[in-house]
Amino acid sequence: MSASWWRWAAAIVPALVLYFTPSGLPVETRHLLAIFAGTIIALISRPMPMGTSVVIGMVLLVLTGTLTATRALAGFSSPTAWMIFSAFLFARAVSATGFGPRVAYLLIHRIGHNTLSLGYALAATNLVLAPFIPSDTGRGGGVVFPVARSLALALGDPPRTSAYLILVGYLSTYTTSGMFLTSMAANPIVADMARQVGKLEITFLTWALAAIVPGLLTLAGGTYITLRMTNPETGGVKAARTMAAAKLAELGGLSGREVRLVLILLAVMTGWVSSPWHGVHNAFVALAGLSALVVASVVTWDELLGEARAWDALLWFGPILMMTDELAKAGVFDVLAASVAGWTAGMPWPVAGAALATGYLYIHYAFASMTAQATALFAGFLSTGIAAGCPPLMLALILGAFSSLNAGITHYGTGSATVFFGAGFVPQSQWWRVGFVVSLWTLTCWLGIGPLWFRLIGIWP
Amino acid sequence: MSASWWRWAAAIVPALVLYFTPSGLPVETRHLLAIFAGTIIALISRPMPMGTSVVIGMVLLVLTGTLTATRALAGFSSPTAWMIFSAFLFARAVSATGFGPRVAYLLIHRIGHNTLSLGYALAATNLVLAPFIPSDTGRGGGVVFPVARSLALALGDPPRTSAYLILVGYLSTYTTSGMFLTSMAANPIVADMARQVGKLEITFLTWALAAIVPGLLTLAGGTYITLRMTNPETGGVKAARTMAAAKLAELGGLSGREVRLVLILLAVMTGWVSSPWHGVHNAFVALAGLSALVVASVVTWDELLGEARAWDALLWFGPILMMTDELAKAGVFDVLAASVAGWTAGMPWPVAGAALATGYLYIHYAFASMTAQATALFAGFLSTGIAAGCPPLMLALILGAFSSLNAGITHYGTGSATVFFGAGFVPQSQWWRVGFVVSLWTLTCWLGIGPLWFRLIGIWP
Repeated sequence: MSASWWRWAAAIVPALVLYFTPSGLPVETRHLLAIFAGTIIALISRPMPMGTSVVIGMVLLVLTGTLTATRALAGFSSPTAWMIFSAFLFARAVSATGFGPRVAYLLIHRIGHNTLSLGYALAATNLVLAPFIPSDTGRGGGVVFPVARSLALALGDPPRTSAYLILVGYLSTYTTSGMFLTSMAANPIVADMARQVGKLEITFLTWALAAIVPGLLTLAGGTYITLRMTNPETGGVKAARTMAAAKLAELGGLSGREVRLVLILLAVMTGWVSSPWHGVHNAFVALAGLSALVVASVVTWDELLGEARAWDALLWFGPILMMTDELAKAGVFDVLAASVAGWTAGMPWPVAGAALATGYLYIHYAFASMTAQATALFAGFLSTGIAAGCPPLMLALILGAFSSLNAGITHYGTGSATVFFGAGFVPQSQWWRVGFVVSLWTLTCWLGIGPLWFRLIGIWP
Repeated sequence: MSASWWRWAAAIVPALVLYFTPSGLPVETRHLLAIFAGTIIALISRPMPMGTSVVIGMVLLVLTGTLTATRALAGFSSPTAWMIFSAFLFARAVSATGFGPRVAYLLIHRIGHNTLSLGYALAATNLVLAPFIPSDTGRGGGVVFPVARSLALALGDPPRTSAYLILVGYLSTYTTSGMFLTSMAANPIVADMARQVGKLEITFLTWALAAIVPGLLTLAGGTYITLRMTNPETGGVKAARTMAAAKLAELGGLSGREVRLVLILLAVMTGWVSSPWHGVHNAFVALAGLSALVVASVVTWDELLGEARAWDALLWFGPILMMTDELAKAGVFDVLAASVAGWTAGMPWPVAGAALATGYLYIHYAFASMTAQATALFAGFLSTGIAAGCPPLMLALILGAFSSLNAGITHYGTGSATVFFGAGFVPQSQWWRVGFVVSLWTLTCWLGIGPLWFRLIGIWP
């Protein structure tokens, strides 16, 4: 602990200053803001595991008399928190059944005709699994990375091809994280903040519909850019398909458990997409799916209880959701928006919006966690943009997607980066160079082409 | 699953009948009651792990449109649920540090001068640990049983002495479960139901203060009764104390981690007891203690996330708390009380109260779980008793204590019974005989002597 005193100090000192310095805000709001700020800084400076900091923040809110016990715990009854909880259990079911690698090898076998389409097969794997695996470490690090590495080794580890496969594996991991409400743990938090800051309802359907066009363009173009920049050795693709066939033979036929898994996940997806018609909250579609997985013995109750990442997410999300909700109720976001409105005064909203989104993307050079950035900055950037006249839902969805897409620019931007980069197939300079060029393409897809699509489907009214 | 179709049917058929049969209740209330009834029966017939049944019940409430998503999840933000969650983590810390066995061997070494006082040492171990270990399986099965067995073996396993030690170990396990708000997982649920049914506030202090006199009498007298009924062989106590000394030497000095644990637990206890003065909710005293345990590295964040029993309790409690809360809001308990008021008409309240408490104790012959009985019957028995004119707080505390004390009459009445009985030191006939005689003493302590104490401290106003 002694070596990390500055990590504590970084969170505690500003919190204390905010807590005790009189400002225009009512005392309780000031205390709330101080403890929130300290918590958020602790998520970045990390004196403790992130969940611990969040729980301590929640406890302090009650010990200081800022909130009552019931209000402080309110986040744990947010459907948002339980939606992401359920998604973590879907991820568990997918990995426990071996369904993830099966999808990957099936796609490689079917569409892997050349180096480019091998990359597409990796991207398609991520795309198929994304709605059900909200952890980029679980999906990218746990499913796609092992497949990409096996592919590279099956091809004889030609250095440029290996770099290509690893980079595409990573690119498609974080890009698909940005494409669904349930494909990244912080996405539901983002949706919740959008509700609090801008009274916006972002369901599974809204997010998926908005992201499908710019997301697929990012994936396709990003893969192609990576191909051009890594310039893989030619030949050897046949070996990859042979390996895929061998792996599929090894996996054998679909087990009854896998069949039940697939049927339940399809039903869940149908339930999510059809929510405007039946009206059941997305979170309860997910919880119904979760119950079905247990009743159908796809996952056991003990596996569910042992899924530490799901519990971590719950302990994390509950207090954060509560804090942002309380801040919104206290009008802090309005005050914030009003106070920064001057910065964008006289700017046409498209310029302000593009500047905010671009800034939001590149500020991630300073972050080691997508969730930490989204938690710390999303609400502020969104309020500012809305104050500058941007169409709220469109900006919220772009910033929401960028909460994941920003991970591509560094080799430490999210958990799965550690896995992909750590394997040593790609030098750091190349990683950053490709990441930067892909980020330019990302901006083109989401700020250039995206708005046309958003206009078409009514998200830009 | 095929073999247990009747377990499903037992829960589903009555639920369907209640759901679709028009009654005097409003439709939504009837649906709520039907799903609640099905859930409770499933806790007893056990087609699935108990937590699964409860989660399914919660999901059905939303899918049927009976409750909104937010209301259905409300139980997860109940301080009650998080109090018990924290207590499970305290239990984890106690077991991880080896502090539990140390207490036991210390007590044996200090006060174990004869067979009777060896029993008291086991009882005192349970008493010291009870406020922090809400699982009788964890405390009785995990700490006290191994010590009792080691003692029996150290004495050369004389059959009557072994039976005595095992029976006292079990007796003191379930008795101390009934003595603190935090010594049994369902106690906070009981307190919550008491709030909903009778507008009663039962804090840690209320419960402990009420239970201390009748609880200690039950322990002391019960141990003595067990001694007389098992008639242990004389001699050999010196071997027990020698073994305790050896075990203590083996454990070595208190580790820094244990010291920090003890200091934090003492602080938590102080915080609970002093709650009328500082006003911080018991649950947040517990959560602050939990945070302190993590910050002081007594338990790690990963250990916390891996504590499956704590998560099980949370998933369990949340929906049950929500359902009873909704039933109370809908006035179901009032209707229930009014409809059974006839049964006790003309009965003086002490007779009605004693009959209800006695019935509540012995009905546990039909239950394999203390929590299942408390969840299913506590609110009904309490409403009935209040309608019959019993002092509400006194009856609530007696029924609350009996929710644990009822476990003594069988060898399957709670989780730890399986451990103590399963070890094979005590024949079933003896187990039941001792259990029955001790239960008569229990009734004497709580219904005969207890009320005098309750009168003295104002619980019987």
